[in-house]
Amino acid sequence: MKLATIRTLDGSTRAVRVEDDHLVDLVAADLGELLATPGWEERAAAATDPVAQARGAAFAPVVPRPGKIVCVGLNYRNHILEMGRDLPDHPTLFSKYADTLVGANDDIVKPPETTQLDWECELAVVIGAPVRRARGADAERAIAGFAVLNDVTCRDWQFRTREWLQGKNWEATTPLGPWLVTPDELPGGVRPTLDIRTAIDGETVQQDSTGDLLFDPVALVEYVSTMGTLRPGDVIATGTPGGVGHARKPARYLETGQVVTTEVSGLGRCENRVVADPAP
Amino acid sequence: MKLATIRTLDGSTRAVRVEDDHLVDLVAADLGELLATPGWEERAAAATDPVAQARGAAFAPVVPRPGKIVCVGLNYRNHILEMGRDLPDHPTLFSKYADTLVGANDDIVKPPETTQLDWECELAVVIGAPVRRARGADAERAIAGFAVLNDVTCRDWQFRTREWLQGKNWEATTPLGPWLVTPDELPGGVRPTLDIRTAIDGETVQQDSTGDLLFDPVALVEYVSTMGTLRPGDVIATGTPGGVGHARKPARYLETGQVVTTEVSGLGRCENRVVADPAP
Repeated sequence: MKLATIRTLDGSTRAVRVEDDHLVDLVAADLGELLATPGWEERAAAATDPVAQARGAAFAPVVPRPGKIVCVGLNYRNHILEMGRDLPDHPTLFSKYADTLVGANDDIVKPPETTQLDWECELAVVIGAPVRRARGADAERAIAGFAVLNDVTCRDWQFRTREWLQGKNWEATTPLGPWLVTPDELPGGVRPTLDIRTAIDGETVQQDSTGDLLFDPVALVEYVSTMGTLRPGDVIATGTPGGVGHARKPARYLETGQVVTTEVSGLGRCENRVVADPAP
Repeated sequence: MKLATIRTLDGSTRAVRVEDDHLVDLVAADLGELLATPGWEERAAAATDPVAQARGAAFAPVVPRPGKIVCVGLNYRNHILEMGRDLPDHPTLFSKYADTLVGANDDIVKPPETTQLDWECELAVVIGAPVRRARGADAERAIAGFAVLNDVTCRDWQFRTREWLQGKNWEATTPLGPWLVTPDELPGGVRPTLDIRTAIDGETVQQDSTGDLLFDPVALVEYVSTMGTLRPGDVIATGTPGGVGHARKPARYLETGQVVTTEVSGLGRCENRVVADPAP
């Protein structure tokens, strides 16, 4: 199944199942609310009432207000090794607040305070059941599905201090979408092997396979849920492959007017224009 | 005013005004809900219906589910200088998820996965109005009040990787309470000068003054709101003074059975027993 949160004409949102030519109403304000309902999978599969034509529907962030967005640092094996680093024993974790999120086709707001806005295409894991200290099959079952996340980063602010948070938490910078795809539809299931790619105005700048992840989605659910309960709608962003602008020689950053496409095969794409902050 | 969130006998919570000998009902599920109501200050001041005797009331975290908990690293001037470091140009920021919070007299849960559980008494700022890029008087007005926060930390996990998050986000480890005190009741107002102190089983281990903060509460509201909107109920933990267990020679850590008292003059105290995780 493909599940999404769309914006409705009255200014609210609605959880939907995405079919080829229509959207099916899931009778929930958003996907976070749906996933918090026990039996959401059967309910989503059984729904039949169409709500609107898919063409032209505006996607909100797949989960508009996750309780937690846990992000993973360097996690692509090839990229770690090409940087001359040893493979780490533990994932490096940081977080984003929900206010950073935008929908799959929304603008990315470039704040006037940065000159180093950068892209990071990532496979996002969306949680579908509450779990603490989940292991093995319990961790696998806690994964509702996957989406594309662009962990847009202000590099100048990221490296102002020794913690990354302030480079990662600018409002309306982080596309999450367009929809969640359940693991049964993906090669590799809860450890999917998918092409991951970023393009700037059509030019490919990142390209790798999610099969190269050092800590795969199940391992990350196990690790993060050791510390605290993962809850329905929580998001784990699994890290980005090589090819970010800051590591290029010379470095490249996002400029207003550019269109960033972040895409994971089987999960669709986010396509976002970079705009100047309308009210700085 | 002193405002708090208490647990009621039916298992829910309630926002209250705390008087010397009784609690006044504020007709909101918790302080986060109250603060999100325009005019909350007048409403809280005008309320008169008592709900229960203060004696024996169980305090929930002052704001049980803040949208953001933004934490500041090293921020006490004396402590930075005594460590031989230069004063930084920018605050170091990291975050806690809401699941870390406990009430002022709840147990601190020591997970079996750590052998280095440490204390960090902090002045917490609670936001009372939505602000973005607030400066000066706007930032001052956005501060609803202050409370005590104990940023309990698993040092072994904090230093596993280069980001602190995983040492800071263990469930049910972080007391926040007992109540919020509005700035008008504090010496220094929105830049309060208060004694801050931690004791383990009655032995003082941290002692300083919040007047020594390098980045004061107003400066932190200005800085954090540059990145994104601060909203009612959001919490900024302003950092801890010297005297944490990890920096002692020999190092000292919290053990089950110990009682940690974190106290800020004028704000009351959190008094929490360290217990083994009942369901690891």
